[in-house]
Amino acid sequence: MKIPDALTGAIRQAESVLIVTHVSPDGDALGSSLALARALRAMGKSVSLLNKDPVPRIYRFLPGWEDVSAQLPDAAGAVLAEPDALILLDCGELERTGFKTLPGRVKLVVDHHLTERSYGDVRWVLPAISSTGEMVYNLIRELGAEIDTETALCLYTAIFTDTGGFRYSSSTPSSFRAAADLVELGVKPWSITENVYESISPARMKLMGMAINGIRFHGDVAVIVVTHDMYRETGTTDEDTENFANLARSIQGVEVAVFIRQTGPESFKVSMRSKGRVNVAAIAETIRGGGHHNAAGGKMDGTLAGVEERIVAALTDARRDSQS
Amino acid sequence: MKIPDALTGAIRQAESVLIVTHVSPDGDALGSSLALARALRAMGKSVSLLNKDPVPRIYRFLPGWEDVSAQLPDAAGAVLAEPDALILLDCGELERTGFKTLPGRVKLVVDHHLTERSYGDVRWVLPAISSTGEMVYNLIRELGAEIDTETALCLYTAIFTDTGGFRYSSSTPSSFRAAADLVELGVKPWSITENVYESISPARMKLMGMAINGIRFHGDVAVIVVTHDMYRETGTTDEDTENFANLARSIQGVEVAVFIRQTGPESFKVSMRSKGRVNVAAIAETIRGGGHHNAAGGKMDGTLAGVEERIVAALTDARRDSQS
Repeated sequence: MKIPDALTGAIRQAESVLIVTHVSPDGDALGSSLALARALRAMGKSVSLLNKDPVPRIYRFLPGWEDVSAQLPDAAGAVLAEPDALILLDCGELERTGFKTLPGRVKLVVDHHLTERSYGDVRWVLPAISSTGEMVYNLIRELGAEIDTETALCLYTAIFTDTGGFRYSSSTPSSFRAAADLVELGVKPWSITENVYESISPARMKLMGMAINGIRFHGDVAVIVVTHDMYRETGTTDEDTENFANLARSIQGVEVAVFIRQTGPESFKVSMRSKGRVNVAAIAETIRGGGHHNAAGGKMDGTLAGVEERIVAALTDARRDSQS
Repeated sequence: MKIPDALTGAIRQAESVLIVTHVSPDGDALGSSLALARALRAMGKSVSLLNKDPVPRIYRFLPGWEDVSAQLPDAAGAVLAEPDALILLDCGELERTGFKTLPGRVKLVVDHHLTERSYGDVRWVLPAISSTGEMVYNLIRELGAEIDTETALCLYTAIFTDTGGFRYSSSTPSSFRAAADLVELGVKPWSITENVYESISPARMKLMGMAINGIRFHGDVAVIVVTHDMYRETGTTDEDTENFANLARSIQGVEVAVFIRQTGPESFKVSMRSKGRVNVAAIAETIRGGGHHNAAGGKMDGTLAGVEERIVAALTDARRDSQS
């Protein structure tokens, strides 16, 4: 992995660093941020972590998560208002951070998402790499900083979550080799798994059971629904529905799973997950949304029955078109 | 990984080989058997695969699974009644194969389970290794045989399933490195995942929803139940309950999950899964069963309510004893 000299040079020179990642931070965003912060601090730098959103409960096992602040530190904080370097991690544009401006004498971008933006003085963007965590692992080694067990844990979590637990096609040879190194450095795979995938609240499990019981099939489209009534009955919120779309997709014979969750009396969020044969991004564009070929979503208004009927019809039409 | 010369020597000399694995074959048993068979055939040997039980549906994506026979080939078969070498894979004793005797001029054992048996002329048993698949991967390389994409797929599936999809503590650095090599040889991680974890039948998903809805909590013990009535209502069988115990264990605050499934009017199979703090093997011994510290099971008779009460009481007592 060739790392631009301009990037390592700028980081080496900086005494104060501000690390910022995207809104709704996931395991890769947080894991890579916390790992880089630890490594840079071990190099004697002053580091601040900034995020528009709070750290989700599920990632509060990551060492140092309390350091992620929602506001820029003032002059009394660890970092001056104008840090020597700003590092945007796991996102390539200002917009994704949720901030209008960000300070930094030099602005650096480290990301594995494909974007065409030009934000930043140095951009290191590698869409073929599994995760920003894998990039940061290589960056830290290049910088010659120490990787202790806590740093390794953050990096492993980043790679682990962004590859869907080494299940997605992003599970490349280099991501497996990085995992091997990190386990050698003391990471316990089972402990990460337990924190990320085996800490389902009883209320969420109840919601999951209810949602599964309500799955409806329309040909090879499976629809899974969560309503306000279901939240009320189980004592859950929006945050408890993670992976519900994937759950419906995991059914044999299902090509596309649609997850419809209520956001208002007659408004819904719609998430689609495809096994690969149907391009759901094209359909998402018709419902005020977007995404990728296999994972996309948007918003729809109306009754639940109406929304379900329309999205299933759109998917059926799309399949017919692609076959003709 | 040091491989005994006696093992590679015996395999090199053999012209006909019989590969046998344990009853109720899992992904590691089948994946490692099929991979070794392919590699030995590529070396020009005549190979037969024997198993007491049929290949479970879930593993019928493995190339060559149809070659696994339930009966010894007779003289007209591919292998003579007395093959030059018998290789026991993923089990270390005759009993686990379900056969009373097995032919073979030399008897070889390749296994990663800890057993104290002495069956076989050459025993290569490494309990610290993730899977028999990982051992076979090294064995094939040592033999200098070709590993094509199909062989790699079988080996990857073996390692993937025995490490719980790289989640259990058996996910060692060497298992990750083997996975990296195998992906480089053409394995598509997502395709294996889809076959193993994302091919849930609609009926099984329905049973899962029903079982989740019925989960009961007794302190930090979660009980999940499947009855004959539930099989009937959903059109499922025993085979559709895989991982149900793990599902209940994945709930936050649960230390032990107990999966009770009905086998007769007043008889039940009981599986226990511990997060590590409770030794369920000790309790399994009291109910005509056995297992490991974190995963064990047995059989109980009586009414469902009675069985549930007794097993929960036994677990509560065990916790009290361990704390006193």
